[in-house]
Amino acid sequence: MTQQATQEPLYVGLAGMGTVGGGLIQLLQEDKDLIYRRTGRRIVLRKVLVRNVTPERAAQLPEGCELTTDMAALTDDPQIDVVVELMGGTGAAHALISRALEHGKHIVTANKALLAEDSEALFDLARTNNCLLRYEGSVAGAIPIVGTLTDPLAGNHIVSLMGILNGTSNYILSEMTTNGMDFDGALRQAQELGYAEADPTLDVDGFDAAHKLTLLIRLAFGLDYPFASMPVQGIRGMDKRDIAMAREFGYRIKLIAEARLHNEADGTTRLEAGVFPALVHHSFLMARVGGVYNAIRLDGAPSGPIFLHGRGAGALPTASVVLSDLLAIARGDKPNNTGFANRIVRAAIVPPEEWRSRYYVRVMVHDESGVLRDLAGCMAAENISMAQVIQKENEKNVVPLVFMTHETTAQAMTRALQKVHETGILQTAPVYYRII
Amino acid sequence: MTQQATQEPLYVGLAGMGTVGGGLIQLLQEDKDLIYRRTGRRIVLRKVLVRNVTPERAAQLPEGCELTTDMAALTDDPQIDVVVELMGGTGAAHALISRALEHGKHIVTANKALLAEDSEALFDLARTNNCLLRYEGSVAGAIPIVGTLTDPLAGNHIVSLMGILNGTSNYILSEMTTNGMDFDGALRQAQELGYAEADPTLDVDGFDAAHKLTLLIRLAFGLDYPFASMPVQGIRGMDKRDIAMAREFGYRIKLIAEARLHNEADGTTRLEAGVFPALVHHSFLMARVGGVYNAIRLDGAPSGPIFLHGRGAGALPTASVVLSDLLAIARGDKPNNTGFANRIVRAAIVPPEEWRSRYYVRVMVHDESGVLRDLAGCMAAENISMAQVIQKENEKNVVPLVFMTHETTAQAMTRALQKVHETGILQTAPVYYRII
Repeated sequence: MTQQATQEPLYVGLAGMGTVGGGLIQLLQEDKDLIYRRTGRRIVLRKVLVRNVTPERAAQLPEGCELTTDMAALTDDPQIDVVVELMGGTGAAHALISRALEHGKHIVTANKALLAEDSEALFDLARTNNCLLRYEGSVAGAIPIVGTLTDPLAGNHIVSLMGILNGTSNYILSEMTTNGMDFDGALRQAQELGYAEADPTLDVDGFDAAHKLTLLIRLAFGLDYPFASMPVQGIRGMDKRDIAMAREFGYRIKLIAEARLHNEADGTTRLEAGVFPALVHHSFLMARVGGVYNAIRLDGAPSGPIFLHGRGAGALPTASVVLSDLLAIARGDKPNNTGFANRIVRAAIVPPEEWRSRYYVRVMVHDESGVLRDLAGCMAAENISMAQVIQKENEKNVVPLVFMTHETTAQAMTRALQKVHETGILQTAPVYYRII
Repeated sequence: MTQQATQEPLYVGLAGMGTVGGGLIQLLQEDKDLIYRRTGRRIVLRKVLVRNVTPERAAQLPEGCELTTDMAALTDDPQIDVVVELMGGTGAAHALISRALEHGKHIVTANKALLAEDSEALFDLARTNNCLLRYEGSVAGAIPIVGTLTDPLAGNHIVSLMGILNGTSNYILSEMTTNGMDFDGALRQAQELGYAEADPTLDVDGFDAAHKLTLLIRLAFGLDYPFASMPVQGIRGMDKRDIAMAREFGYRIKLIAEARLHNEADGTTRLEAGVFPALVHHSFLMARVGGVYNAIRLDGAPSGPIFLHGRGAGALPTASVVLSDLLAIARGDKPNNTGFANRIVRAAIVPPEEWRSRYYVRVMVHDESGVLRDLAGCMAAENISMAQVIQKENEKNVVPLVFMTHETTAQAMTRALQKVHETGILQTAPVYYRII
């Protein structure tokens, strides 16, 4: 290994010094032995791009590394081999990565929003310039899903995938399930513990999970599902009654990201994908994903189902897979940025109204005779058959009536609930979730 | 991608046409589109080495591919880029791979016995000749564990790993647990279903799991644990009473392969590793691995725990990851055969008598007063404290007395049970398993 041991160090420029960036700086200093054992080279941090240069930040840097506020000082520096983008956001990050690729730098990023919303040009640039564009940290933290899909499972046909991809939402749902908290209380607790941002929109409204799902769809199927078209429903305002009712039926409510290939009769394929809360039977491994953990299930042919579970976020876990991406570049891996040789193609999309599923439905009705008959009649008119019904007694006049249906389409369910609405028996809007 | 699209095909020679070899031939014919999408190249099977050339075998081959019984026709053919070894066994496979590497061929194999018992020279040869030696199919079938450890988790320090690595044993234990079968009946059923060989030694006596554990230890820690020194205990003759008793305590009995790094006070590290039946608490994901499935849990710093679950065997699932290895070679990946830049080093070993664990113990005793006192006295003499005791009433005079201990060493447990033996209260040899 003399040959490798005498190799030049790999020179790195880092953009962004937030929690993950700070974690990477720490790992690069602590893990010199690991890096050398894994690659036979050293990794040297030359420059860090920040918005403001402060003495506190400068103190965290290794010797010989300097802070800069000038993007070009990173992207154009001939002595930098790799630019690590951990600044987040989309505009400036896109400009930085483009310019770095134009200068022939390899890229490591964990920026799921950028990659999901606007990365086609970046992947093209990386291909043209024969650069690596690696992003293991952008999906599900330390769960090794990007590398798994681009390499050991590349010989499989992935036919569907399903995941719990947002740790914040899963924490909130777990607390609501285990401790009977309501949504607002569980969100506040997540914020106090640092699991949720002050503005929790990206997490609880499902957009973070949808960003990650967009990346997984490309990696698994080689298809592009435009992020703007992705159906996304989050968990904001989830009623703890539904979580309790689901439990009585033997289910947990989880925020699920799902994508599924449909082979149509005419030989074409269409993709069904989206993010939504759903009931998952307690006997499934997916139902047992607790707290801030993430999990992904891949269904491949001929591999069968593969399930991966781990921490979905956190500064050091994410920094550690960013480091793994740097190790791959230090080893001299060839670009395999998307897992496919050519540009991925636009997916033909199954519109959400065609999705088939069993449903959990809760309606609030007056506790009167005839209500169940009217409800069942509206369902039957759309060929929806009810599998199980629970009607709870209540001291009040308005009671929840909960039922689970056999499989139907989203369209039929919407129409049936519209008919129920027209009967005038509903006291509040109906709540309904898919069952997995 | 014109550049890649006009690349030469990758030419492959295959040794062995058993179930996995036959599966690979099938996938290479069915998956031409997948292969081209993933690599921009074609993969062409040129020759297949078999012991006997038969018309039935010849009929399974693609056009232009020929059968041969001459090893050198594969290893020395300048028109073959990669030799895929799926013949099994150690002697002939070792000779074949050595000779192919000497001729500069890349290697793909799923031969865990060969890699575990005698592969140091092969990895050295691959390094010297700058060849890829890939073996994703050798551990846990379609679970992508080799690639996970060499790439996306390379930036982590794996501190321990644990797995259910033998599907046959797990099937037998699952049947004994779920259906109350005894060991012989469950083994016979596994044989009838094709999950167990006529000679089940490798599976039920733990050697297959130990082969895989040996490979995982190298990949996770960069350490060599000589296979011949590995402590291995299988499940042959497991008593269904112990499975039922374990359930009463809230545990499942699983055949566990485990490896754990110990950081010693003097700054050195030692490795504790082995294969053994153990009690796993039902709330752990590992306890929920059923039937012929496999699972692996990796504990890394800073990644935290990562859990992977999937089919551990099967002709097509294994062939599909063999195909993934071929895709990596077709992409022109650089050798990263062990995940480390230099030769891996010999592990310092924690001898089994020093292992610390909680224990499940079952002894058969006469149903007399004083027996529990004598037993507890022997345990106390070795500083072993008993956490829970179950004594069952029985119509016979000899009854099972089952207890779980707090943590102790294997050595203390052996000595305590020797003392119990000397009291004369034991009617049969004691049964004891570790608790995880």
